[in-house]
Amino acid sequence: QGLSHYRADGAAHMVDVSAKDVTKRQATAKGVLRTRADVVARIAAGDLPKGEAIATARIAGIMGAKRTPDLVPLCHPLPVSGVDVDVVPAGDDAGAVEITATVRTTGRTGVEMEALTAVTVAGLTLYDMIKAVDNAAVLTDVRVVAKSGGRSGDWNRDGEGDA
Amino acid sequence: QGLSHYRADGAAHMVDVSAKDVTKRQATAKGVLRTRADVVARIAAGDLPKGEAIATARIAGIMGAKRTPDLVPLCHPLPVSGVDVDVVPAGDDAGAVEITATVRTTGRTGVEMEALTAVTVAGLTLYDMIKAVDNAAVLTDVRVVAKSGGRSGDWNRDGEGDA
Amino acid sequence: QGLSHYRADGAAHMVDVSAKDVTKRQATAKGVLRTRADVVARIAAGDLPKGEAIATARIAGIMGAKRTPDLVPLCHPLPVSGVDVDVVPAGDDAGAVEITATVRTTGRTGVEMEALTAVTVAGLTLYDMIKAVDNAAVLTDVRVVAKSGGRSGDWNRDGEGDA
Amino acid sequence: QGLSHYRADGAAHMVDVSAKDVTKRQATAKGVLRTRADVVARIAAGDLPKGEAIATARIAGIMGAKRTPDLVPLCHPLPVSGVDVDVVPAGDDAGAVEITATVRTTGRTGVEMEALTAVTVAGLTLYDMIKAVDNAAVLTDVRVVAKSGGRSGDWNRDGEGDA
Amino acid sequence: QGLSHYRADGAAHMVDVSAKDVTKRQATAKGVLRTRADVVARIAAGDLPKGEAIATARIAGIMGAKRTPDLVPLCHPLPVSGVDVDVVPAGDDAGAVEITATVRTTGRTGVEMEALTAVTVAGLTLYDMIKAVDNAAVLTDVRVVAKSGGRSGDWNRDGEGDA
Amino acid sequence: QGLSHYRADGAAHMVDVSAKDVTKRQATAKGVLRTRADVVARIAAGDLPKGEAIATARIAGIMGAKRTPDLVPLCHPLPVSGVDVDVVPAGDDAGAVEITATVRTTGRTGVEMEALTAVTVAGLTLYDMIKAVDNAAVLTDVRVVAKSGGRSGDWNRDGEGDA
Repeated sequence: QGLSHYRADGAAHMVDVSAKDVTKRQATAKGVLRTRADVVARIAAGDLPKGEAIATARIAGIMGAKRTPDLVPLCHPLPVSGVDVDVVPAGDDAGAVEITATVRTTGRTGVEMEALTAVTVAGLTLYDMIKAVDNAAVLTDVRVVAKSGGRSGDWNRDGEGDA
Repeated sequence: QGLSHYRADGAAHMVDVSAKDVTKRQATAKGVLRTRADVVARIAAGDLPKGEAIATARIAGIMGAKRTPDLVPLCHPLPVSGVDVDVVPAGDDAGAVEITATVRTTGRTGVEMEALTAVTVAGLTLYDMIKAVDNAAVLTDVRVVAKSGGRSGDWNRDGEGDA
Repeated sequence: QGLSHYRADGAAHMVDVSAKDVTKRQATAKGVLRTRADVVARIAAGDLPKGEAIATARIAGIMGAKRTPDLVPLCHPLPVSGVDVDVVPAGDDAGAVEITATVRTTGRTGVEMEALTAVTVAGLTLYDMIKAVDNAAVLTDVRVVAKSGGRSGDWNRDGEGDA
Repeated sequence: QGLSHYRADGAAHMVDVSAKDVTKRQATAKGVLRTRADVVARIAAGDLPKGEAIATARIAGIMGAKRTPDLVPLCHPLPVSGVDVDVVPAGDDAGAVEITATVRTTGRTGVEMEALTAVTVAGLTLYDMIKAVDNAAVLTDVRVVAKSGGRSGDWNRDGEGDA
Repeated sequence: QGLSHYRADGAAHMVDVSAKDVTKRQATAKGVLRTRADVVARIAAGDLPKGEAIATARIAGIMGAKRTPDLVPLCHPLPVSGVDVDVVPAGDDAGAVEITATVRTTGRTGVEMEALTAVTVAGLTLYDMIKAVDNAAVLTDVRVVAKSGGRSGDWNRDGEGDA
Repeated sequence: QGLSHYRADGAAHMVDVSAKDVTKRQATAKGVLRTRADVVARIAAGDLPKGEAIATARIAGIMGAKRTPDLVPLCHPLPVSGVDVDVVPAGDDAGAVEITATVRTTGRTGVEMEALTAVTVAGLTLYDMIKAVDNAAVLTDVRVVAKSGGRSGDWNRDGEGDA
């Protein structure tokens, strides 16, 4: 079986989804930005008057979800109907933050790519903020953890929560 | 010491770089898309008449580098003067591909964010291609491995090659 | 009652509109660019061979309406189905022009933001044209004057015309 | 009869399509890049390890189709549901390549402009590649050859194939 | 004297600035969003766990500054080198917030349009947030208050502060 | 000799132009939209109160020039310093209009692609306007006619005017 984004002759194309149903669809993706414990403390600092680091990453992630079809060549444009992005200290690693994005649509294709794009753009935005104090940061473990809606039905990655 | 993207009062701003020198700058970033060995084989398949998977990811990465200031809120727009993106099977893991991007500019700030954006957009493009055959893929280990130019001079991540 | 663009914990999100009905919706916004009477005369000059100032503002406003979700972070992307932009001398002030934009869609959310964006982008375009001859211009009184469709039904701002 | 993109008073507007039916629609456009036979040979060279010229043009064309409403001021945004772009040596001219794009949607307006934009952006991308070796290249004969769906029904340009 | 954005024949063009000097330039613009005192209190609420309304407007304004040449047709693209956006309760009106944006560049043209765009996009973002609770809000008094650099030298609007 | 946009291994890349001089550069491109004489008359109609067809195409072309690096994957971003677009009845064909665009920059690469993009986007905009009355229109003869600046010096296409 070949990859559906490529025709039988190997050429890239945007696959025709006209025949797919318009249904409610949702996807959740996660990723981790690994840095140092002191940097995580600065990102999360709630004691600053206007500690906007997490808000900036969240807004960038939401806007990034809307730009997905401009970035990923074979991705279909979709009317995104809701986006949540969260950035929280990763429970098991004092030097990491976990980014989670959930995207909803009513459309003909799923929104995994939109959720993944939200996570990566939020992660890049955090990276940008901290690169002056930690040039060894890593954006890692970016993956889809749950999706629902569409022909393939509900799916959760092993051991990860509901979409 | 606070994060420079935030003022003393904690508000996000685009830091003024007017006083920085215009110099040649270069950055290299890497990342890994972890999937299955059979999927890597399909991505890399050179025997298809028009096996365009890697070309698509490469083009997406190059175009992504140019979109960096549209995506990362506090990033300065820069006249990118050259971009290379490579996607190769990861030597030590039959189920992974390694993505490398090198970006060059002559400007007032570095191009680490452009190189990281190129890697992540190329990685998301590959993810999009393979998600129908592997819903467990992970984009991981996205980091800067080398930079040169600017006031801070040349830098290589421990144990990684030259920019 | 909190603002709906923010969750109970205060975090910004793009509110989920999946459950809202797809209906015909329309909104009209207005604004005023206040400059000098001689500048208004130049903008409106119909005696020039190709007096394109108003056409340029109109086109910019129409294109601006389509860019709304790229600019306003928590705004939902919408399939705009019609846009009119008018720029006319303000009846009661020889030194001002009034900008009016009406936007239509068939979607799950209203198009007030699209109408307001069309007015402001048209206004900025006029500002750009005249700033060399009037550095004291002001874009002012930008507001929604009428909307129709959706659950909240028809609404007209006190003393202003129908959408 | 006036042009529908202009009101009775001559002002440009985005015509209201709210009353049009949502139907499946498809359009095919073609164009030709005329250069020299030796340049066509380089573009098409299948013997290079990674001969990505045609893939680059194809990807650019697909992405261009999605950008149509950003480029063409009075064009309605549309949820593109499929795009194919082909670049092949023109049968009757050893020094030319023919570009064909087919775009599909389910919407209220046709996708001729999306197909034409895909052809021109693919053509410009090829032009960019070869301009260093042929400054006399010409992008020519860009036209719609077939459309289907919508109120006007199916249409084929005289002597050209089906959409 | 005609408007410089129009040629002698009245046609719009992007005026050639090749002969202008590359210098440091700065501009500050202001605007006011007029709503109700209770709404201003919600926007500014510092007691919410993550009161991100002002941060969202600030980020939107900064990103808007970078999009200026995409929105304003005859505006030259510029390498923005710094942006600050502030949103504060207007001292003289309990129902209004004042938005201030300062933009810096080293380039051939001024950045008044970038500062005005930052103010209007931040203002539209606030409008979007509050429109569900106040449909009578007005974005008003958007104007340049100071500029420096370039041939025309420093300028302050009468009675307003330094850039 | 290979195409410079492709490396020795055939991979597409954005060629490094860091070593090229920053000089004043200019390019002029032309193209023709072929339709019917009665349609050309409508486009050019100067007797309509607000005959904005040509203004719309001109503005679209100018804005298109600025979007070139977003559309053409391997094109370098450039600070465009001036753009003129003209649309005039083609002297030798009552059913055609000729589109001419001249773009200027001070940068490291030429602006042929920007001039070609301006011509094609202006042409597509005209096509969009007239497609309801002429489905047989053709955008043709899009080519560079002159360039100046840069290492390769001045060049005029045989038999065509100065840049």
